[in-house]
Amino acid sequence: MSSIKEIISQNLKLDDSIKELIQKKINLKTKPIGSLGKLEEYALKISIIQNTDSPKLENPQIIVFASDHGIAKEGLSPFPQEVTFQMVMNFLNGGAAINSFCKSNEIELNVVDAGVNYDFGNIEGLIHSKISYGTKNILHEKAMSKEELEKAILSGYKITDKILDNSNSNTIGFGEMGIGNTGISSLLMSKLLGLNLTETVGRGTGSDDEQLMKKISILEKASNQHKTSNEPLEILETFGGFEIAMIIGGIFAAAKNKSIILIDGFIVSIAYLFAYKLNPEIKNYSFFSHLSEEKAHISLLKFLNQDPILKLNMRLGEGTGAALAYPILKTAVGFLNDMASFDEAGVSNKE
Amino acid sequence: MSSIKEIISQNLKLDDSIKELIQKKINLKTKPIGSLGKLEEYALKISIIQNTDSPKLENPQIIVFASDHGIAKEGLSPFPQEVTFQMVMNFLNGGAAINSFCKSNEIELNVVDAGVNYDFGNIEGLIHSKISYGTKNILHEKAMSKEELEKAILSGYKITDKILDNSNSNTIGFGEMGIGNTGISSLLMSKLLGLNLTETVGRGTGSDDEQLMKKISILEKASNQHKTSNEPLEILETFGGFEIAMIIGGIFAAAKNKSIILIDGFIVSIAYLFAYKLNPEIKNYSFFSHLSEEKAHISLLKFLNQDPILKLNMRLGEGTGAALAYPILKTAVGFLNDMASFDEAGVSNKE
Repeated sequence: MSSIKEIISQNLKLDDSIKELIQKKINLKTKPIGSLGKLEEYALKISIIQNTDSPKLENPQIIVFASDHGIAKEGLSPFPQEVTFQMVMNFLNGGAAINSFCKSNEIELNVVDAGVNYDFGNIEGLIHSKISYGTKNILHEKAMSKEELEKAILSGYKITDKILDNSNSNTIGFGEMGIGNTGISSLLMSKLLGLNLTETVGRGTGSDDEQLMKKISILEKASNQHKTSNEPLEILETFGGFEIAMIIGGIFAAAKNKSIILIDGFIVSIAYLFAYKLNPEIKNYSFFSHLSEEKAHISLLKFLNQDPILKLNMRLGEGTGAALAYPILKTAVGFLNDMASFDEAGVSNKE
Repeated sequence: MSSIKEIISQNLKLDDSIKELIQKKINLKTKPIGSLGKLEEYALKISIIQNTDSPKLENPQIIVFASDHGIAKEGLSPFPQEVTFQMVMNFLNGGAAINSFCKSNEIELNVVDAGVNYDFGNIEGLIHSKISYGTKNILHEKAMSKEELEKAILSGYKITDKILDNSNSNTIGFGEMGIGNTGISSLLMSKLLGLNLTETVGRGTGSDDEQLMKKISILEKASNQHKTSNEPLEILETFGGFEIAMIIGGIFAAAKNKSIILIDGFIVSIAYLFAYKLNPEIKNYSFFSHLSEEKAHISLLKFLNQDPILKLNMRLGEGTGAALAYPILKTAVGFLNDMASFDEAGVSNKE
């Protein structure tokens, strides 16, 4: 793939002719029909993605895309911008939440420098794909050039494609790190869906009331600074960020590979929203891991008509929700393979 | 322990003097305060149970107690009574949902004959603790004698104590199997909490509208047949069942061992309700795995002031919810042990 147009115009429709066969297999397992609830839906969806009645989740991966936002220096988040690179170092050293969540659930973690405002040199363990040292400050100019946006989406696509290929994986979760990116995501949602910022801006990872007012006011200024259509790529180019653009590319690479996609929290859901606007067929591959505490996530999921797997009041990002939802999908796939049918087990069915 | 009185009057209070230390440890991890939501509560609760800032979940176990109910032959469930023993065979042969759920989540499964209406002989892999060949038909007589109730609770206690000891486990989930036991649980809830059967009776694992009306009518007859006080043990003796009584004993054994207790769905929650009425301190050890689709579970959890970990529309029992919630608790414990603090990682905290 060498252009955004090629990536988004792929045919991502799925052949679901196996659907009835799978549903029958599920219904004949030794349990009352429908009694495994959502897990039955997950097993069915995964079977259709893999076009088999014996689906498997192989070598699950999480990719965290990290990047900075020029506007962060205006105080969009209560954390200083340097936390982005510090957290990347924390990922590489194994000390962050996502490291622990991946370890607990046997998931491999991949960390990408999408555009952190720090020179990592040739540090090992990091996937180097820096587009720039953070986006531009959108109070004054566009976040990135058209070329940078194209490069970010293509890089996300290629990195994801390569990781899936190298690891023989068919299950991938996306995560992100970037001080200020919750605010940027709220702005992106407001622009793409035509909502007021007061409806889409929340507390991020740790804003109090005063911070929240300040955040809305800064984002309103940025919003008024730029005239955009409601064209997804134009909105992304104007407001950023690199990590979000790379996740969009990653989602398309995962779908092309018929991989199960685990969408994390609010920010990754925003990347999904843009990918979905570009090609709605990505929904066939995607699972929404959890409902974030971030205010607008619930309305975003409602708009997307998606019900998240977990509701645990988390609001961290990094892919932590995706890692936590993975064992639920693993268990769903497991019952379809492992359980006996009424006939096989010699169990009487309903009278 | 040689009497119910001894079991329930144990001092199960926990020393929570470590609480502030743990909360501080959680707050200094490289994440915004509170951003791991419920997982932070779980990590704190488990640390207090284990009285350590480095908790571990060791060799998790699930015990499924299976038993029959005399009233089942009146058509309380759409499944015939023989399904109880057939499902026990299915558990032993590895073909049931709980087998697969345990396999997917690396949990050891233990199956107990608490009072199945079938002669298993000396079959291997089954823990033989049959009180009787099912309870009596409560349309005509009490479910069990006082001696049988005492024996069931004590057996559940001893079996659980032994399993925890033999396996060096500190994490246990309870499950059940018994055709008709959803209906019995609804009746027990109605009696203990003084509610109408129309409020507590639901569809069980697979009743349609007609079945539901029949179920309520049968249970009403059974209810009117017996005069009971609101004394938990008297209600249990009158209405059954053996598996519920054994789970009550099991819960007390787990608490005595300072084990984490995973409560499954509606029926195990009813066993918990009775245990809680006998000694409210068991709440310190207990986690509610999931919200069952069974109608009265939500009001029962509300009464108990408990918020379940998962909400996945499941209604199977067997301990499946407990098995599925386990990796969430494992991940909660993991972050407390694995994550670096802001100081350790050299990450700047909030400005």
